[in-house]
Formats: sequence, structure tokens, C-alpha cells
Amino acid sequence: MDFFFEPKGVAVVGATPEPYSGGRYLLTNLTLGYQGPVYPVNPKYDEILGFKCYPKVSDIEGPVDLALIFVPAQAVPQILEECIIKGVRGAIIESSGFAEVGPEGKAIQDQCIAIAHKGGMRLWGPNCMGLIDISRQYIFSFIIPEAWQGMMNPGHVSLIVQSGLLSSGLITTLMGNKTLGLAKVCSIGNKSDVEETELLEYLLKDPTTKVIALYLESFIHGRRFFELATSSDKPIVVLKGGKSPLGAEASAIHTSSLAGNYDLIKGVLTQAGIHQADDFFEMTDIARALEKDFHLQQPPQRKPRIAILSYSGAAGIVTTDHIEKYDLTLARLSPETQKRLEELSPTWMPVKNPVDYWPATEKHGPLLTYKHAIETLHNAPEVDGLIVHLPTGFRIWSQNMKEVMSVIKGNRKPILFWLIGPEKIREITRKALEEEGWPTFYEIHRTVRVMAILFDQSRRGKKSLEKPWL
Amino acid sequence: MDFFFEPKGVAVVGATPEPYSGGRYLLTNLTLGYQGPVYPVNPKYDEILGFKCYPKVSDIEGPVDLALIFVPAQAVPQILEECIIKGVRGAIIESSGFAEVGPEGKAIQDQCIAIAHKGGMRLWGPNCMGLIDISRQYIFSFIIPEAWQGMMNPGHVSLIVQSGLLSSGLITTLMGNKTLGLAKVCSIGNKSDVEETELLEYLLKDPTTKVIALYLESFIHGRRFFELATSSDKPIVVLKGGKSPLGAEASAIHTSSLAGNYDLIKGVLTQAGIHQADDFFEMTDIARALEKDFHLQQPPQRKPRIAILSYSGAAGIVTTDHIEKYDLTLARLSPETQKRLEELSPTWMPVKNPVDYWPATEKHGPLLTYKHAIETLHNAPEVDGLIVHLPTGFRIWSQNMKEVMSVIKGNRKPILFWLIGPEKIREITRKALEEEGWPTFYEIHRTVRVMAILFDQSRRGKKSLEKPWL
Repeated sequence: MDFFFEPKGVAVVGATPEPYSGGRYLLTNLTLGYQGPVYPVNPKYDEILGFKCYPKVSDIEGPVDLALIFVPAQAVPQILEECIIKGVRGAIIESSGFAEVGPEGKAIQDQCIAIAHKGGMRLWGPNCMGLIDISRQYIFSFIIPEAWQGMMNPGHVSLIVQSGLLSSGLITTLMGNKTLGLAKVCSIGNKSDVEETELLEYLLKDPTTKVIALYLESFIHGRRFFELATSSDKPIVVLKGGKSPLGAEASAIHTSSLAGNYDLIKGVLTQAGIHQADDFFEMTDIARALEKDFHLQQPPQRKPRIAILSYSGAAGIVTTDHIEKYDLTLARLSPETQKRLEELSPTWMPVKNPVDYWPATEKHGPLLTYKHAIETLHNAPEVDGLIVHLPTGFRIWSQNMKEVMSVIKGNRKPILFWLIGPEKIREITRKALEEEGWPTFYEIHRTVRVMAILFDQSRRGKKSLEKPWL
Repeated sequence: MDFFFEPKGVAVVGATPEPYSGGRYLLTNLTLGYQGPVYPVNPKYDEILGFKCYPKVSDIEGPVDLALIFVPAQAVPQILEECIIKGVRGAIIESSGFAEVGPEGKAIQDQCIAIAHKGGMRLWGPNCMGLIDISRQYIFSFIIPEAWQGMMNPGHVSLIVQSGLLSSGLITTLMGNKTLGLAKVCSIGNKSDVEETELLEYLLKDPTTKVIALYLESFIHGRRFFELATSSDKPIVVLKGGKSPLGAEASAIHTSSLAGNYDLIKGVLTQAGIHQADDFFEMTDIARALEKDFHLQQPPQRKPRIAILSYSGAAGIVTTDHIEKYDLTLARLSPETQKRLEELSPTWMPVKNPVDYWPATEKHGPLLTYKHAIETLHNAPEVDGLIVHLPTGFRIWSQNMKEVMSVIKGNRKPILFWLIGPEKIREITRKALEEEGWPTFYEIHRTVRVMAILFDQSRRGKKSLEKPWL
């Protein structure tokens, strides 16, 4: 697969100087990070954006590992033939009009596979957004440049997405918000040849990838996929599309996938230790928390013990309800922890978990009290994880979270934040916390579910060392 | 209850000129909307912020309907005695230190109830944030003024919240984001006397209230509450705190409530046609959609038929999965509707529901295509509701939603939006749509669940005319 991820020479078939067109975006995206030779291919032009343009792929002089193809479906088979003559090793077909539009398109797609197979070339797509390597800034995709320029947020979550535009919308959202640190984004569309299992295997070995999140409508090599997942120490999160009968029908149209029986798939995914999401941001919320290097202490045969630091009794109670729902439990604070917290709490307010620290905050201000409480609860041996409710927007709330969190030294137990407050100010606080590596969430149930998954994964990590399937 | 909502004369017991104190906020909040006479009470001052200050409530000359009390718990019984001498009709006790802190506080609370009962005065609280009437700008609460000034967003959702600070954090979030239009916010804390059932009855008759959302840890007069709910044509949404054993334990501390058996409560709530939420923003998301005057066409014995307008096949499929989960169904588009949509769609892209309109958008630009598709799908008789996926952030997306939505004239079927895109730009689009009365959401599952609830409520509305319980 290296010729897809690190190609020596890239041809852009369907390159054009036309503004607002995919063929132009493909070319301009290549100029921004990729360092190897770039060859636009289009019989209509001698030169595009300063690059010499070739009538055919086979006319290119230098070596070409990869062809990015963005021309109408019916023109693709001929182009693949030329690619094979040239010795191109892989082609990413980003245009649509193949199996997803009906029998006629399906026939063209089958023809493409036959040509590639015969010529020993690999196909990626069609009907996809291609490949993005965020750390190298390799953008082998017709994604609109203004959607991602200046917003790249390198990290260690890699995505495999059986979709085109969704992956674009999703990653620009996530990058724009500087929430999710991304490694590689693979949009595989109709996955006529390259599919999720092969990419999963590649990413499991990829040193920049720590977590893999997948949106899939079908599993092509199901057994191999689950074997890989079961023996993997890297966390895997899956959002399965086409769970319902009508959803499966829509998926047959979308990427020409057979969605399969979801009840069955769900059981197998669970057994393989794969975390499952029902929505896109749920998937990425889980992935971005799993990317962090939290220290998860968890003696066996015990539920993870969570402390809640709140400013509101009601929010503490609703959090507790979710903690029980997700099979975590409330930490029982030791007399020492209680005593330390009571140093700042007024005498009439007994300290229990959930810790309602508003009275202390009123007395001593939020900076001192949140520092004191977060440090105390994080360092308490009887606490495995901490959920902090943070109201943003009043006085110092919006400014000092970096200072507050500086009290955490050494190994980090998971501290997850539920933020509340007017959007603008919440945004500032969110970014400050995320930059320091502390995940923030919009809703209580998500905060708690992600906490539960962190511990699931750590249990799984231990279990997987035994590699029961191998 | 009118003397709480429209008092003739208000005393503020515990008023103080001290900055950053609840006693000061109570007083300044009263000067900003309330037009009747205001009397600070504090033996330490002759005058506070330009108001004549009284040593005792009974020293006030003019009539006083309502006393707002913000002094330490042990001082409250004596103050209530003075209120009764003065003829005060209701007192809102906003300070803490009562039943929620233990037996000692419980004894003081019991003493307060006995005094009030004997003297014919009603008590609201203690341990609460009081009462806010957004349309009149009556703020009988120690809520921090900077948290709400300039952010009031009048509307028709009223809240009853068995909590103090949460209601404050929640309403400042919702008001700051101009999302939820609020009528009356009742924070009832320990609800020692005034409780949810009495307030529900009041709000059911209140002409500014269209929807009632409640956070409750217990139901004091359960039977009456459910009778009211069952016969109500106003939608009611409940978030119950203390569903789990540990949550119930925490709620005993928080507001000294007996949380009850949730399985039992859940069944009764469902039977009474009450919508149930598991999280705070879920509760308000449901309430704000129910506030809108959507036209819900729904012949009996048929699932509501939903159309999806998307830019992404994957997002369409995941939405379809949720549509089936929540017992809605996909609209089957008529040949006329299909034909109209195909006017802008390239020939290779068959139009089905979910409608993947990206190819049309690429060809004709988002303004024209979204206008055309939203109008077509909204006006199609075979469509009962529409879910629109909107990517914000690219070119014209952020500007023209008011223009796009101007195509909807007359009766509005529900059109709910799922927005995706970088936070800043999504915020602008969100506000534009919300201002025009079109609800927007962050996640697909929430969008679909709210759609399902709109139809549940409309079915319920018809049923409730029969008033089966009465």
C-alpha cells in the first residue's frame, strides 16, 4: 500500500485550470504538501497552473506511482489502460457514476477492476474523496482547499470512511474546531478493490496512528477484519451505516454495499473489542479521547470509580445516573480526600461525591477552588477518573483553565469536562482545555460514555495481550 | 400563585451593597425590570444602592406581597414571623443550609413550614434560584446580572427546575445562544411548600407558556401531576434526576428528595404523554422544537413520512437508520416530486429519498439548489417532515439561509436541520435559522428523535381531546 501513501510521482488525470472544479482542487492540493513530481493530464491543455500538462498518462517521462483520476466514469477504463502501460502502481478514482448509480455504472466499475487486475494495478474508490495524510500534508483529494487550509490539526487518529463528502464535511469540522488530532484520512467510496480490512492492517502498523475510527456500510473480508481487531492493541471505533432495512437499502445505492444483518455484526464487533457509535460525532468523540495517554488504574473485578466535581447538585445527580447506566461507579472518597476538600468548603456544606463545590467557589473564587479540587480528586488513590462540570462565561472562567490544569503533573488519570455556557465563551474554554489534552463534551451522557469506553479499552488492552484468537 | 408572579411590592431580606454577593444581585436584578416598589431589608444599612433600607420587614410602610430571602438558614424563621406580621403573602427563600445539609437544616426547614402554614403564607424554596419571568424581565433571583443581561430571549417555553445553579447555568447558556425562547423559569430547590404540581397547573393556564420542561428529582403530588399532564394540550418534557440507586442517594442530599422507583415512574410518565429526556440539552432541544407552530399532517395508522435532503450518502444512511429506530419512515417520493428534483440534478444521479443533492449543488450552486429542493420536498404531499443536512463554511453557506428559507410560505411542516462545519461559521448559520424559527441540531440522532417527538405530540394532542381520565 506504500505507493498510495508515499508515491514517487503523481499524475492528476482530469486536471483543469477551471475555478471551483475538483480537477483544479486535486492539483492545487498537491502543490501544498507533496514534494514529489506532479503531472497534470488533460489533452486540452499544454500547461496548467505552471505545470507541464500531458495528453495521456503514458506520455509522462518520469516515474509515476499513483494516478488521481477525476473524469467522467465512461472515460476511466481507457485511462486505466494507459496507467498500466506507464507502470502506475495504484489509482485513486474520485469521480462518481459507477456502481452507486445503477447497472450501467456497475458495468463500468467491473470493467475497471478487470483492467486493473489484469495489469497488476490497485484501485482505490471510485466515488470517494481519496487520501489525506495530515502530518505530511499530502492531500490526494479534491477536497476544497479553503475548507482545510490553515486548519490542519495533526494527531494520531486515523479515519477510514466509506463515503466521500461526509468525510470532507466531518474532517473540516473536526479540524476547524481543533478538536480531533488526525493522522490519515482514507475515503474509500465504493471500495471496488482497496477496502477497509487492508487499510486497517496498514494503519495498525502505521507509527503515526494510535486510534482507528471507521464509518462502514459493509465488511468485505469480515473474518480477517475481526481477527485483526481482536488481536489489535490500537483502539478501534466503528460507526456502521445501514443498520436498519431502509438504511441498508439506501446504502446499496450509496456505495453499492450489502449492509448485512446488523444484530449479527453488532455481536461480532463487540466480541472483537470494537467500540461502536451510532452517530458521527459520537464516533469522533470516542476516538479523540482514546487518543490521549491517560493512566488507567483498574484492579480487576471492580467497577472504575469516578469522582464528579460539579457546581450544581442536579448536574451531579444526572451524571451519577449515567455513571450507573454505563457500569461505572461513584468513588467513595477517603476521609483524607474529604478533609482536603473541606479546607475550602464552608462548614455547612458536607463534602460527598458528587462534590458540589459551588459554595467553596463562592467563598474563594473559581481559580483557587477548581485547582484545589481537581488536584485533590485526581491524586486521590480511590479515584480512577474524574468528571468536571465547568460553567463558562462568568468572570474568570474563560481564561484560566490552562493554569488550573497545570496542577496535574506526571501520569494523567482521565479528567473529562462537561462545559456549559454561551457558545462564544464555551468555545474559548473548550480550545484551551483541548490544547492541553483534556477532552471536553457538550452533553453529560456523552462525557460518561466516553469515560466508560476508556476503561473498556484498558481492560481490553490487557486481555488482548493473551491474543485468544491466535 | 399570582403574588409570586405579579407581586405588589417586594422586600429583599439580606440585601447588601457588597459586590459579588447574592444579596446585591437580588436587589439590582429587581431594578432592571420590576416596576413595583422594592424594599431592601438589612439592619446594618439605612440605604442601599439608592433605596431606603429597613431593619425589619415589618418596618416597611407600603404593601409587600413577596419577600425574597437571602440570609443564613438559622435567621430565616424569625424573618418569616416578621413577614407574617407585615402581611406578606409569599416568600422565596434562596439561601441554602436547610434539609439538603442534614437533620439540623431539616429542623430549620420544618420550623419555617410550620410558621408559614400557621400564618397563611406560602413558601418557595429554600435552596433555589427563585423565579424569572423573561417577557416581563422580572428577575426574582440572585442570578449574576452579567450572566443574563442583554441575552434575554423571550419565548414560550417555561421551565420548572428542582435545582438552583443548574437552572442558572442552563438558562444563561440557552439565552446566550439565542436558542430557546423562554417564558418563565421556576427554580424550586427543596420545594418545601410550592412544588411542581401547583406550578404545572399555573403554567398550563399561563397564556405566555406553550411548552413546559421540568427537571425533577421527585414528584410530590404524583397522582395530580399525572392527571394534569394527561389532560394537557401543552407539551410537557421531563428530565428525571435520581433514576439510579446512587443517583437517588445523591438526590436525597441535593434537595432532600425521595427519588422513587424510576421504572414505575417512567411507565406512568409515558402513559400521561410526557416526553422524557436523559440529559439537559436533550430536554431543551425537545422543548424548543415543540414550541414552534409546525403543521403536522398525519393520517392515522401510518408512520410519519420523512424526507432527507443531504449532501452526503453516508449521512443520509445514518439518518435513515435513526428514522427507523424512532418509528418514523422514509417518504416515497412521487414521480412529480422526483421529476422536479431532477430538474437540477445531473442525469447520472438518480433522485431517491434520502436525496443526495451534492451533484446538483456542484452544478448550480447551493443557493439555487437548496431553495429548489427544500421547497419541492416541503410542498410534496407525500412528505410529512423534512430533515436537511447542511454543511456550513464553504462559500455561500454561511450567508443565505434566510433567503433559502424564504421559499417556505404558509403552513410550515417541520424542517429540522443537522449542521456540520467549523464552530464559528456553524454558529452564524445556526442563529440565522433559529431566528427564522427553524430548529438546528448538532447530531443526527437528536434531529431524528426530536422529529419523532413532534409527531408523538400531535397524535397525543388529538387523543387528549377525549380526556380519557376525566
